[in-house]
Amino acid sequence: MENLRELNLKLTAESLRKAIHKDIIIVQTIHSIDNLIAVISKLLSNLRERYGYYNSESMKIEDQKQLLNEIKKFKKGKVGIDLDKEDLDSVLDLVEVIEKLIDTKEKQEKYLETLMKKECPFLLETAGPLVGARLISLANDLKHLAELPSSTIQVLGAEKALFRHLKEGARAPKFGVIYNHESISKDKNRGKAARHLAAKISIAVKKDYFRKK
Amino acid sequence: MENLRELNLKLTAESLRKAIHKDIIIVQTIHSIDNLIAVISKLLSNLRERYGYYNSESMKIEDQKQLLNEIKKFKKGKVGIDLDKEDLDSVLDLVEVIEKLIDTKEKQEKYLETLMKKECPFLLETAGPLVGARLISLANDLKHLAELPSSTIQVLGAEKALFRHLKEGARAPKFGVIYNHESISKDKNRGKAARHLAAKISIAVKKDYFRKK
Repeated sequence: MENLRELNLKLTAESLRKAIHKDIIIVQTIHSIDNLIAVISKLLSNLRERYGYYNSESMKIEDQKQLLNEIKKFKKGKVGIDLDKEDLDSVLDLVEVIEKLIDTKEKQEKYLETLMKKECPFLLETAGPLVGARLISLANDLKHLAELPSSTIQVLGAEKALFRHLKEGARAPKFGVIYNHESISKDKNRGKAARHLAAKISIAVKKDYFRKK
Repeated sequence: MENLRELNLKLTAESLRKAIHKDIIIVQTIHSIDNLIAVISKLLSNLRERYGYYNSESMKIEDQKQLLNEIKKFKKGKVGIDLDKEDLDSVLDLVEVIEKLIDTKEKQEKYLETLMKKECPFLLETAGPLVGARLISLANDLKHLAELPSSTIQVLGAEKALFRHLKEGARAPKFGVIYNHESISKDKNRGKAARHLAAKISIAVKKDYFRKK
């Protein structure tokens, strides 16, 4: 009886292991990363708001890490209202947690790349880790993404604009999440670049999926 | 000429200092705290999603810090899919950043209390730091909050429900952000408790404002 129970536990664990594909982990990880990106931008705009009263010059700095370093160097007594020690400490606490968030985001991105190298190396190479993982997430998993035509991959993530196009005759969207890929933001003719990239991704993801099967 | 420039700078700094009331800092700080609260809850639900595949028992734990400690104690090999070292490390990274966020939130709350002790001690005592600061933020500043009738204070933060009431005859909201005050969530008759609390807050904030003037 005891043995039977143990065997049962083992079999359950085994079937769980088979049921949960690694692409689910990829989807969860890109969710974490996209959450972290949103969170960092929210807290940074809050920090700009708070720190701007003490040193309005800093508001002009666009680069995230540069802004954080600038604030850490800040000394009391510049133009702006005076900072008590506790005011400064509180602002610096915010700086510290944002630095930690940026660091975590970078680590999660590396982890995502490791996962994708094993699971879908062709997609990783063609689309990059973030765009590739967002496409898997939008299609639910690798299998469904492999079944989509290239024209759908091109507009994945632009569903709102697509339905506006179909229902109200608005302009058709040229791209969804693949917009963030460098080959598109660099190209003058973005529509054409998006079509090309989507076609390449469509082939890459089919290679990945059927290699696994 | 040089002296004139320096004098000008000093005068500008002085007038800036006067123009920026401490209640602006209170409003910014409660924005930070509310951002942090939202961020922590988002990343925690993400963590539950990711960690649940490895150890579904943990999904039942409600308390934030207890859940984080539970995950840190987790060892490989329980029921659920196997964790590679890099999978576990990635989950632990998320745990670490959430702990840091909780710690920052607590520090910001202490800072908020320090600010309010100086700026509006009566409001702090009556409404508590979070509810009090949210009321200032909703009214824009202490001056405007002091001018509001108690019935408005009672529903501050429930503007949507209030307009639904006025336009469509829906039920009138009983409370806005003061809902989060313990005296209301504890009371059986929440509408009455909200009315009482709003009246007390209305007096407290007037005391604070006219004490300053």
